[in-house]
Amino acid sequence: MPVTLKEVAERAGVSRSAVSRTFTQGASVSDKTRRKVEKAAAEMGYSPNALASSLTTGRTKLIGLVSNNFHNPIFLEVFDLFTQGLQERGLRPLLVNLTNETDPAHSLQMLRQYSVDGVVVASSTLPPSFAEAFKAAGMPVVHSFGRWSTSPDVHVVGIDNVMCGRMAAAARIERGYQKVAFLGGPQSATSTQDRLAGFLDALEGRSSMQVRYTFAEAYSFDAGRAEMRRLIAEGEVADAYFCGDDVLSIGALSAVRDAGLSVPDDVAIIGLNDMEMAGWQNINLTTIRQPIREIINSSIELVVALINEPTRYPEARLFPCKLVERGTLRALPPVKH
Amino acid sequence: MPVTLKEVAERAGVSRSAVSRTFTQGASVSDKTRRKVEKAAAEMGYSPNALASSLTTGRTKLIGLVSNNFHNPIFLEVFDLFTQGLQERGLRPLLVNLTNETDPAHSLQMLRQYSVDGVVVASSTLPPSFAEAFKAAGMPVVHSFGRWSTSPDVHVVGIDNVMCGRMAAAARIERGYQKVAFLGGPQSATSTQDRLAGFLDALEGRSSMQVRYTFAEAYSFDAGRAEMRRLIAEGEVADAYFCGDDVLSIGALSAVRDAGLSVPDDVAIIGLNDMEMAGWQNINLTTIRQPIREIINSSIELVVALINEPTRYPEARLFPCKLVERGTLRALPPVKH
Repeated sequence: MPVTLKEVAERAGVSRSAVSRTFTQGASVSDKTRRKVEKAAAEMGYSPNALASSLTTGRTKLIGLVSNNFHNPIFLEVFDLFTQGLQERGLRPLLVNLTNETDPAHSLQMLRQYSVDGVVVASSTLPPSFAEAFKAAGMPVVHSFGRWSTSPDVHVVGIDNVMCGRMAAAARIERGYQKVAFLGGPQSATSTQDRLAGFLDALEGRSSMQVRYTFAEAYSFDAGRAEMRRLIAEGEVADAYFCGDDVLSIGALSAVRDAGLSVPDDVAIIGLNDMEMAGWQNINLTTIRQPIREIINSSIELVVALINEPTRYPEARLFPCKLVERGTLRALPPVKH
Repeated sequence: MPVTLKEVAERAGVSRSAVSRTFTQGASVSDKTRRKVEKAAAEMGYSPNALASSLTTGRTKLIGLVSNNFHNPIFLEVFDLFTQGLQERGLRPLLVNLTNETDPAHSLQMLRQYSVDGVVVASSTLPPSFAEAFKAAGMPVVHSFGRWSTSPDVHVVGIDNVMCGRMAAAARIERGYQKVAFLGGPQSATSTQDRLAGFLDALEGRSSMQVRYTFAEAYSFDAGRAEMRRLIAEGEVADAYFCGDDVLSIGALSAVRDAGLSVPDDVAIIGLNDMEMAGWQNINLTTIRQPIREIINSSIELVVALINEPTRYPEARLFPCKLVERGTLRALPPVKH
């Protein structure tokens, strides 16, 4: 069995706190005590751990990652980047699964019991009030993929979703599509609302074009497929869709192909995220790339900064997106000279 | 800012350990001390947390989940089930990312620093010696998806991979395929070795059949696609492949279709896992279902039992697999009367 801090303290004839302080960088401990502890620890093969150091510092080095959609493949990349980023910094990633759970009070209670030093809420479907409730309770929190505002209450790291909506509209205007539509994620999600706003804004005044929008029930394959099937059954199919994200897009593509329509000739699709699977050759999805790596790394840096400086002024960190052209949107027409 | 255990101890005029014991079920504390602590805690709005209780019990309620493949979508299901299963039990899921890391000594050091009570190693590619090193160092460990043996050193929860290889061979024999092959995962993985052994065993003595096997470099889309492209380029294509897992199968399918071959008429594919994506209508993969939910739930139960009873006799818990018929293997011929 591993040697415990308590056993080292007993052998050294000092308090447990003295043992803990000995192994905590910057903590105060007399030379005499330090020598006793180091001798006992060496004899017993004791190595300090995070629990021991948390006794003195009041910090656990645990950072919570809150997710409420474990079925979207984009989260594999989020989990990978988050765990690697924390491990590189000597911090510990604690995964919090809020599938089917939307009450911030209950989640906060859980995170308190988990003794996390800070939290990254990685969700575009949880409302801003969710992270705000954490902040109000004194928990250092960063909302990744959240809605930014010019007067933020909570630190946000992500993208400008309104700009993404405009970008998706512009890509189709440039290519001459006339019947264009937005097939968004859940209508209640800020990401859906903002992408729709940008999309409609960019198309305003283009009276020759037919503009439609609709919503899927979730960011999932099944929801994207179901909504596209419904549109096809009702004879309401546009020429080019901007879908809420990549997994929705893949669901919509499945419905389009099942109906015998060709992509991108009959129906074009633009996704959002550029998750790994979007580049698989059997998917080959044209999509708007959200810089996931930069968002997660920046979120980690920011939550660490917040733990050290809890009154830090709120900020929004926004990263640019760009269109990644693959096979589900036709190429730009040649430029006329 | 949240109230700390130290502040409650100061207010109550007792030691930090006394505060901790007051909030730990079954811990010894005098009535007088308990009353003082409860009064101070109520006045200050203090609620006990896992850190506080770990002071007394020496347990952190942290359970590590070790994964070395964050790019395989099956792990979304593993993470989801693991985090939900621990949360239901009041335990805390700590994710350990061993991508590009295979040294058990270094991983063990990290897990010690993380102060986990126990570890679930969820991998079919890490060798048995990996979990065995944890056990030898006194860490309660369960190897999920590991190789079982009749004289196990470490607790294993998973499937009988030899049996899966036999099942995949039998499914093709029954359907009359003559040129059959195994496209395995990494050759060093016990899952690959065992599935191959079962496959070859079931086909032994069938001299009319052509039997081949080959390996992909990883359990990934790209590796499955690359290996199938190589086979096609060399004119070595069999009628029916059993692939190492679903994500490999999807990569292989992509290569088969790119070559203008039809599925399942020219080439049939059987996967393994039955991950959510295998059932997506645009994938529609015939596969051998590995009961992920049962394996993860059982692994959690077992690691908890091991923490309470470290000398517990090692066991292998094996769950049955079954063929899930979809669109990548032709149907059984009608039974002749």
